[in-house]
Amino acid sequence: MMQAMSDSRNQTDSLGRLKRLDREIHLLEHVAGLLQWDQETCMPPAGIDERADQLALLEGEVHARRTTAEMGDLIGAAESRSDLTELDRALVRELRRGYDRATRLPGDLVRAMARQSSVNHATWVEARTKSDFSIFRADLEHTLKLTREKADCLGFEDTRYDPLLDEFEPWMTTAELRGVLDALRAPLVDLLQRITGSGVRLDDSVLHRDYDVAAQRAFSDYLLEALGFSAQTGRLDVSAHPFSTTLGAADGRLTTRFYPNLLSASIFGTIHECGHGLHGLGVAPELATTELGDGTSLGICESQSRFWENLIARRRAFWEHFYPELQPRFPALADVGLDQFHQAVNAVQPSLIRVEADEVTYNLHILLRFGLERRLVDGEIEVADLPEAWREESRELLGIVPEQDADGVLQDIHWSMFLVGYFPTYSLGNLYSAQFHAAMARDIGDWEEQVRRGEFAHILGWLRDRIHRHGRVYSATDICRQVTGEPLNARYFLDYLEGKFGELYRL
Amino acid sequence: MMQAMSDSRNQTDSLGRLKRLDREIHLLEHVAGLLQWDQETCMPPAGIDERADQLALLEGEVHARRTTAEMGDLIGAAESRSDLTELDRALVRELRRGYDRATRLPGDLVRAMARQSSVNHATWVEARTKSDFSIFRADLEHTLKLTREKADCLGFEDTRYDPLLDEFEPWMTTAELRGVLDALRAPLVDLLQRITGSGVRLDDSVLHRDYDVAAQRAFSDYLLEALGFSAQTGRLDVSAHPFSTTLGAADGRLTTRFYPNLLSASIFGTIHECGHGLHGLGVAPELATTELGDGTSLGICESQSRFWENLIARRRAFWEHFYPELQPRFPALADVGLDQFHQAVNAVQPSLIRVEADEVTYNLHILLRFGLERRLVDGEIEVADLPEAWREESRELLGIVPEQDADGVLQDIHWSMFLVGYFPTYSLGNLYSAQFHAAMARDIGDWEEQVRRGEFAHILGWLRDRIHRHGRVYSATDICRQVTGEPLNARYFLDYLEGKFGELYRL
Repeated sequence: MMQAMSDSRNQTDSLGRLKRLDREIHLLEHVAGLLQWDQETCMPPAGIDERADQLALLEGEVHARRTTAEMGDLIGAAESRSDLTELDRALVRELRRGYDRATRLPGDLVRAMARQSSVNHATWVEARTKSDFSIFRADLEHTLKLTREKADCLGFEDTRYDPLLDEFEPWMTTAELRGVLDALRAPLVDLLQRITGSGVRLDDSVLHRDYDVAAQRAFSDYLLEALGFSAQTGRLDVSAHPFSTTLGAADGRLTTRFYPNLLSASIFGTIHECGHGLHGLGVAPELATTELGDGTSLGICESQSRFWENLIARRRAFWEHFYPELQPRFPALADVGLDQFHQAVNAVQPSLIRVEADEVTYNLHILLRFGLERRLVDGEIEVADLPEAWREESRELLGIVPEQDADGVLQDIHWSMFLVGYFPTYSLGNLYSAQFHAAMARDIGDWEEQVRRGEFAHILGWLRDRIHRHGRVYSATDICRQVTGEPLNARYFLDYLEGKFGELYRL
Repeated sequence: MMQAMSDSRNQTDSLGRLKRLDREIHLLEHVAGLLQWDQETCMPPAGIDERADQLALLEGEVHARRTTAEMGDLIGAAESRSDLTELDRALVRELRRGYDRATRLPGDLVRAMARQSSVNHATWVEARTKSDFSIFRADLEHTLKLTREKADCLGFEDTRYDPLLDEFEPWMTTAELRGVLDALRAPLVDLLQRITGSGVRLDDSVLHRDYDVAAQRAFSDYLLEALGFSAQTGRLDVSAHPFSTTLGAADGRLTTRFYPNLLSASIFGTIHECGHGLHGLGVAPELATTELGDGTSLGICESQSRFWENLIARRRAFWEHFYPELQPRFPALADVGLDQFHQAVNAVQPSLIRVEADEVTYNLHILLRFGLERRLVDGEIEVADLPEAWREESRELLGIVPEQDADGVLQDIHWSMFLVGYFPTYSLGNLYSAQFHAAMARDIGDWEEQVRRGEFAHILGWLRDRIHRHGRVYSATDICRQVTGEPLNARYFLDYLEGKFGELYRL
């Protein structure tokens, strides 16, 4: 009896210790998040040198805690218990995943990747500026070599792409991913051809008139309040590349950018990041600042930004409420009616640059990148083949071909940063968002009426209850089944596009 | 020979290790500084709970490094060497001082002070709001008890006030301090009486007209550039209580506040913090982010803010250049001439509140506080005697008596935060600033002409070379002797006041 009690106390102590270590890790990660947020929004330019050292030190503190032998022992001890709550089991599962990933990579490889990443930044920028792939080629080859080594260290059964994808979309296999994304390809290409062949052109030139930046800022703030993103728990700033970061259980930071000649960038950029922010702040308080405190995968995270940006805010019902609020703020909109504005923000046009793409063509850009990076990792093509392969795929998918590599293979920063396996999560986000939206529409009968009245509390509550509050307790696959009753299925997204653009382009 | 080489290498290694630990400490302190800066300027209100935990974790990391046995051994090893450079000797001296101070305080006492500090905040705020000293009395008594314990742990020869003062004004004794401040008392009281009896009244009501906040902000930015505080290495934000913090070798943050009905607060607040910021950014790069990277004492730090705020920017020559720039920005100044403005920003008036005091009465507020806190620590008076003692001293020094304790003994937050020994550094700053200014005036013959032309590079260069770049290499006492050729002497400050206010008040 004494023995049992003592064991039990030791077990409780060791789980408590594990949780304290875990909390320290996430407090430190939030601190590092603040440093990065500050670097992008506030820091004076000359602060960069020391900031890099501050971040490296914090990352070292996090890494040390994640990989210490004590952490391994504590996880092992917790795994051997049969009396854990569901939440504790999920915590231990995710800590094990992080521990294994972190300890399987040798320090030399981690340092080699960090060095190469730093070198890449300079050569990629130069290559893109001069639109000369040969400047970046050797570094990308070395990056691919190190990426393969990384995959080998992490281990895999089927393909080296599996452990790379798993970094961003945990527990999903390449085979599953291909199954879902392959189903997109032919219908999307077909839809795009029907749109470009429809004879209908939606005119988005009104978005490029003069829009006062201060008035755009005020409208972004207004939108955030309306969507339920409160100034009590978050704020909006300006950065070169919009992002969202959660710096604490009740501290969400969004950024956007304002162009004096492009109204849509700030509106939809703000709403996109707001979707991320609401997700981050919606995690249950007891999970925040733990290994379960983030979104469960990048696909799920992106589903929340896309849900608000596209499924809600590019809808006519949304602008029935907000356009009367928007129009008087900008003289440039004086002669623009609601329908004209709604069409402008939904114009479809094949273009070379992913980040400027519309809802129909965006995923074609992703299919292109996913196909190339998977074949690179699997050795089916070589780095030297990339520019030509890019052009071929671009012709096939989008019907247009970049004349220069700056608009093709050199346009994205991701590969230079070892972000291989990241691109497909953008498409997964689009697919999840449509499938979640369909489930929400079943549960909330008058959801569109609510949008038309500018009321989002019910919809946000639904997302919080079904998705946000769970953090990483469930995998993306499990969340999808729980929320929608079936595995991820591209049909919902395709149905959504057909319905919306079929009407707009009179297909 | 081999032995000697090996020793030498070990010594070099151990000094290198000491410096790496020291750098980590200061990187972490800069990170903590960013968290505090963000808390005051940007953080959404609900972020406060987790922010407190983030800061506590970082402070724990710093404390652990400062007090580890390895740190003690490394300092001891460095102290035993005879071949250190002057900079390394100074570094080891300051690390020893910090190590001894940190290791002499038992963890229980540190925690008890932290708890009491937290309790104090609530009771002090309530006591001040209700102007009822009895609400705060018991907590202040306990605070005093813990403060005495702290002094006993730190050790002292003469008075318990010595180790408390040493926290903020290192290497200065209470006896030295009393010598300097006692010399201020009679001449200041006399000057104030001559001013109030002069029959001259300088009218500062023009400063209380309507001043557009955005225009105040723009003028503050303009002033910062003009004074040499570059947006490349720093920025200005808004906070409830203005402060300056250096977050890296090239990252200085200032805050100020803007009142729509008080122009002087933003102008002189900005210039004051700019003085701190220029000091922080002027430290030699090889000292920044080391134990030698801050100002050598709070008195020296305050001398730099006061130098710019008072010795330069309340001078007529300064406004000969800047008033033509200021006046057209604000309709409220249309009928205000240069002399009228210069008089308004130099009006002397005994008042109850320290933070609103002018150059003449400010130090009387400090003499009052210093006398009371020294007598409290030495047991010459009790906490219960404070309100009455405050009134007596106020009558004696300022000629006015607070009707309520909110305007008397409850007005400052310092004692509630265990900041005993801090107040006198404000006066030391004023004295140092005048003594430095006199030395600068000897070295730069046409300095006032330069101010009249709005040129500050020469003056700033003088401060950087004589003071800023040295960080904490020299003690305040040594810096003062090096720069001015003599120890701190209240005469320079008194001469400055006599000259300026003698003219303004026609004494």
